[in-house]
Amino acid sequence: MNQHYGKTFEVQLAGESHGLGVGCIIQGCPAGLPLTEGDIQNELDKRKPGQTLTTPRKEEDKVQIKSGVFEGKTTGAPILLWIDNHDVQSQSYGKLNEVPRPGHADVTAAEKYGGFNDYRGSGAFSARLTAALVAAGAIAKKLLKRQGIEILGHVQQLHDVKVTDATDEAIRKNAYSNPVRCADPKAAKAMQRRLDEALLDGDSLGAVIECRVLNVPSGVGEPRAQSVESVIGSNCLALPAVKGVEFGEGFAAATMKGSQHNDAYLEQDGGIVTKTNHAGGTLGGITTGMPIVFRVAFKPTSSIAKTQTTLNVATKKQEKLNVGGRHDPCVALRAVPIVQAMAALSIVDLMLQAQKIPRVLK
Amino acid sequence: MNQHYGKTFEVQLAGESHGLGVGCIIQGCPAGLPLTEGDIQNELDKRKPGQTLTTPRKEEDKVQIKSGVFEGKTTGAPILLWIDNHDVQSQSYGKLNEVPRPGHADVTAAEKYGGFNDYRGSGAFSARLTAALVAAGAIAKKLLKRQGIEILGHVQQLHDVKVTDATDEAIRKNAYSNPVRCADPKAAKAMQRRLDEALLDGDSLGAVIECRVLNVPSGVGEPRAQSVESVIGSNCLALPAVKGVEFGEGFAAATMKGSQHNDAYLEQDGGIVTKTNHAGGTLGGITTGMPIVFRVAFKPTSSIAKTQTTLNVATKKQEKLNVGGRHDPCVALRAVPIVQAMAALSIVDLMLQAQKIPRVLK
Amino acid sequence: MNQHYGKTFEVQLAGESHGLGVGCIIQGCPAGLPLTEGDIQNELDKRKPGQTLTTPRKEEDKVQIKSGVFEGKTTGAPILLWIDNHDVQSQSYGKLNEVPRPGHADVTAAEKYGGFNDYRGSGAFSARLTAALVAAGAIAKKLLKRQGIEILGHVQQLHDVKVTDATDEAIRKNAYSNPVRCADPKAAKAMQRRLDEALLDGDSLGAVIECRVLNVPSGVGEPRAQSVESVIGSNCLALPAVKGVEFGEGFAAATMKGSQHNDAYLEQDGGIVTKTNHAGGTLGGITTGMPIVFRVAFKPTSSIAKTQTTLNVATKKQEKLNVGGRHDPCVALRAVPIVQAMAALSIVDLMLQAQKIPRVLK
Amino acid sequence: MNQHYGKTFEVQLAGESHGLGVGCIIQGCPAGLPLTEGDIQNELDKRKPGQTLTTPRKEEDKVQIKSGVFEGKTTGAPILLWIDNHDVQSQSYGKLNEVPRPGHADVTAAEKYGGFNDYRGSGAFSARLTAALVAAGAIAKKLLKRQGIEILGHVQQLHDVKVTDATDEAIRKNAYSNPVRCADPKAAKAMQRRLDEALLDGDSLGAVIECRVLNVPSGVGEPRAQSVESVIGSNCLALPAVKGVEFGEGFAAATMKGSQHNDAYLEQDGGIVTKTNHAGGTLGGITTGMPIVFRVAFKPTSSIAKTQTTLNVATKKQEKLNVGGRHDPCVALRAVPIVQAMAALSIVDLMLQAQKIPRVLK
Repeated sequence: MNQHYGKTFEVQLAGESHGLGVGCIIQGCPAGLPLTEGDIQNELDKRKPGQTLTTPRKEEDKVQIKSGVFEGKTTGAPILLWIDNHDVQSQSYGKLNEVPRPGHADVTAAEKYGGFNDYRGSGAFSARLTAALVAAGAIAKKLLKRQGIEILGHVQQLHDVKVTDATDEAIRKNAYSNPVRCADPKAAKAMQRRLDEALLDGDSLGAVIECRVLNVPSGVGEPRAQSVESVIGSNCLALPAVKGVEFGEGFAAATMKGSQHNDAYLEQDGGIVTKTNHAGGTLGGITTGMPIVFRVAFKPTSSIAKTQTTLNVATKKQEKLNVGGRHDPCVALRAVPIVQAMAALSIVDLMLQAQKIPRVLK
Repeated sequence: MNQHYGKTFEVQLAGESHGLGVGCIIQGCPAGLPLTEGDIQNELDKRKPGQTLTTPRKEEDKVQIKSGVFEGKTTGAPILLWIDNHDVQSQSYGKLNEVPRPGHADVTAAEKYGGFNDYRGSGAFSARLTAALVAAGAIAKKLLKRQGIEILGHVQQLHDVKVTDATDEAIRKNAYSNPVRCADPKAAKAMQRRLDEALLDGDSLGAVIECRVLNVPSGVGEPRAQSVESVIGSNCLALPAVKGVEFGEGFAAATMKGSQHNDAYLEQDGGIVTKTNHAGGTLGGITTGMPIVFRVAFKPTSSIAKTQTTLNVATKKQEKLNVGGRHDPCVALRAVPIVQAMAALSIVDLMLQAQKIPRVLK
Repeated sequence: MNQHYGKTFEVQLAGESHGLGVGCIIQGCPAGLPLTEGDIQNELDKRKPGQTLTTPRKEEDKVQIKSGVFEGKTTGAPILLWIDNHDVQSQSYGKLNEVPRPGHADVTAAEKYGGFNDYRGSGAFSARLTAALVAAGAIAKKLLKRQGIEILGHVQQLHDVKVTDATDEAIRKNAYSNPVRCADPKAAKAMQRRLDEALLDGDSLGAVIECRVLNVPSGVGEPRAQSVESVIGSNCLALPAVKGVEFGEGFAAATMKGSQHNDAYLEQDGGIVTKTNHAGGTLGGITTGMPIVFRVAFKPTSSIAKTQTTLNVATKKQEKLNVGGRHDPCVALRAVPIVQAMAALSIVDLMLQAQKIPRVLK
Repeated sequence: MNQHYGKTFEVQLAGESHGLGVGCIIQGCPAGLPLTEGDIQNELDKRKPGQTLTTPRKEEDKVQIKSGVFEGKTTGAPILLWIDNHDVQSQSYGKLNEVPRPGHADVTAAEKYGGFNDYRGSGAFSARLTAALVAAGAIAKKLLKRQGIEILGHVQQLHDVKVTDATDEAIRKNAYSNPVRCADPKAAKAMQRRLDEALLDGDSLGAVIECRVLNVPSGVGEPRAQSVESVIGSNCLALPAVKGVEFGEGFAAATMKGSQHNDAYLEQDGGIVTKTNHAGGTLGGITTGMPIVFRVAFKPTSSIAKTQTTLNVATKKQEKLNVGGRHDPCVALRAVPIVQAMAALSIVDLMLQAQKIPRVLK
């Protein structure tokens, strides 16, 4: 298992769903950044379970800064963050190592780790570990904010409801004011109806999150292997339930002509901008200065209330499975701050590589 | 610029479009693999320019093995591959550093490297460097073939022509027997018509390449940061013109319900398989043993014959641009073996990490 | 600050001397290793302060396994270890950021981190962090023990007292039965006299630790950049107070002739051994199967009770300095288990690279 | 085999002693550095074989810059350097895979790579590959020179002849003006006598190279795992025949008292210097601004003309061995520019990590 992200702003994750907690060590954070547990808590609260429409699991998710901060500022030394697990009901998951849940990592994890993996609540495979990514991302976001960089995220599509014309302002204003994290209040209501229907049906739904990173300076990204797309893509494809990532027009670019897709150059305030932003803010893997726009596709939650048929790996017989425990009808709803965190971690990492953030902040 | 791929089967690229040539050093290849320049040449010939419908540039693309092979077998030492450039017409590109081509890396490269970048034919940003990736991938493919692993690739979609029901056998048989690399001969003809129209119009088209990796054993992939999706995704998003990557159902999974998307488990020959393969061969970032299926979206070629308007960065005035030089109307056609190479490099890297390929071959 | 060790058995450190504690995350430990906090505690107790002749600071040094172990065995997921700080007297160190201690990192740390570094007890520069290295090393040692590998360490030289003829058996039996960690009881007494004199004089002494790794199979080590020497050397030179590392004859080899230094080959039980072991167990950076023998030079403890003259960086005037706080008269005494830990971490890392330890233990 | 050096200024080596040549790809070199083949050739000529007292092998060692330089300046893209082998006499080495040379990597290489390694002239294990390191180091030296950094090196000790009082000026003036690379002309003569005797006797001698890096700014080095000592140490211990590395007082520090070893702080021109430099230019793994001083111990050349007894691995019988081929009586003599190159590569790497060298040079 590899839970190490980044090259210059490095995040090493650890923890399990039903163990003592989850945490991470961040290496490479510049010295001199004002940082409190409250800064991180704000971000963590955005993904906290127990909100409307998501899993009823109640976690306080209180983050502790265990190292790397002194007199309210980062020191340049590794920062250890830790979040205790509280509301753990291991008994709900007891049988899963024999009767694997379709769509889950139960079988592949058991195979890879010789059955030694902690299978309770998916153990180290659980989306619970993304709490530590959001915590690390909160630090990255704070670094970026100093440079005027803003990261917007929202659920652009849920099942068949899709928003195509959200403005930055609409995302900024609305995404965190409705439980489906949608920039368009009307679409948000339609999404809620789909979720209500799915819940009633014991089923789950997939979704697409769109993320926009505003005001990143041009010249960020190390083509090819550390291009903006490679780094954001790699980080997002590491998240549970993610099945695709696209930039700018993405897969739609395959249906376009060059004369449509090419963004024309204009001069603006002495710099160069593009008239359109089909490219999504990068050319040759390097930022253009235009917003970085990308979308992440999430599959429907694997754990559904509906009875499923699966294989009992001990008896080698098919049997009925009713997955107990607590689950989100759509993992993407809680994933918006997670995708934003991955964007922040990616951009900070690349800005440090490009020396666009100093090692000591003044 | 970062041209370093992989953790255990490492590929370091170098070279330029209009310089002396392109090459790479491969570190971590197991000892004892029979390897000739012919083995690599076979793969290189698949992406060679000068074939129907692609750029008229003529390159012999003769690969030389400069180190790491002794008496016909790999030694365990780094392998240096080199391909000379022959058919270089630098004069066609002379003016591009002043009048950047829309959709190209001209502006971002000049900005990032202070104008010191080799701008001739995009220099180190050129798709020409993918020749070295294909060469490295040829070695990876040979390693995988010993274990029965096969990598299929084809153009699944070109503009509005899409093939949704290609069998493995159809891809194996047809993809390299028509110039558009399509598994379906009928669709291939429609694709050719679209290309003819685009060429006539001085325009270019986007496309989607599908890749299938067959017979990868279960248990490969290091969740999360080195998951199958992260590694393949990162490698493919490093390629020029790529705007998206998806696995299994990909973005379509966002429109599905959990009860549809979950793949049911079955027993087969003592092992576990899934009835369907919506997941595309991975769960929790680890291979299931089912085919790994992914798709890569390519934008339309940025260089088009059509006159475009762009900014002269010296005069700060808009001016007309006619891009000369030699270009593919659809970069994806030549990219099929490149995507296959990235798949091979990714899987070998992960199999070495999982100790599924020994360091010395018998 | 970079506290990340290893490529396949990765250790990421965090913590401070006078903060909440010290810890680490270990990534890459094979699944299935029986592991308790007691296993780690045994090793930690060997470096515990408060023993004779070392600093009177009293730390319980109780390690907690926070993740990565389930039902008594490692799971393959990252292992987070944490040790709380208890006996912290920050007030002793208050003034050091203005009046730097000669021989300490006070000045360089303040310079590098813009004065944001935690200077209390040297903060993240403190030898206290080696507790986390010893904890990680305890896991590595347990992995190696399963393969019959043993790591011996002792203080070979303290100031002018040197032991040149210690047998493996003498080290095994005596090193941890006297407070100076010396394999020779008679020399141990002489070393103690030197320390008593130094303490009386308010001074400190340097020393050399010798380490022997027995029964490592041949073929371990990745020449050149990950040679046995490079990896052990890099890890040991990362430790506080270390000024040199040598292998086999080391610097004495410079005074030898080839005909003396070359180790003759012999056959033994079907394998190849060498008659002598001047090379110290490696040739070409790869293990020969003979004991790996290396020595690490430690400078005398920088913190001495004697009054020193130093620069007040605020007033820019020379002033007298009496370093308070609690210090070892010879850091090397407590460093024996630390050097053994670095040897264990190095060898496990290289054995995993060479596929000599499986990813799942049976 | 791992021939990859550095984290930000990365050097990937390839090649063999008796293959087509040796080379490397350098990734991470800032853009805008004026660079010609002549710049590199100057450094290469310093280690060229065929000089007095070293192996009679004649190599032109003409370096070719194959990529990464455009219009006389580095572009920011990877730089591929290649040096053809010319004077190759493979037949001299034919039998060595059966009758291993004592002190060489013949046995360990064959064991590790299953006998597939190129054994001619030690193949990829040959010191010939250090030509590529010197070539890469030449670029690093040029980068450092712009910042006023100078790297001095000389043979401080050869067998029993040792120079302890060489000034920087003496090294600068004398080291490359006598064939034993010694700073002291008188000692140089004594060293030559030792070498003459050894040659007459068919034997070889060990030596110590001292290296001093002047004018490195304070604040360079990432404690702990990328401390100045760890990085230089790791790079030097990767070289053939090296058995030890020490910094400042090194092993002699073990015999010193704290009150002797601690370097007192003084003010100088508004900055902080130390009265002495026992530490060798680093505290806490970070540069102090004082000269970085380190020494590297080389064992005597393993290949000697004297008849040796060894094991025939095929017949399992002891037999007499006369090593033919061409060899240096003391490898260290040619290693002075190599150690200087490793110092340059290490310091550039750490300065880039510390953002003390920009990514684009003006």
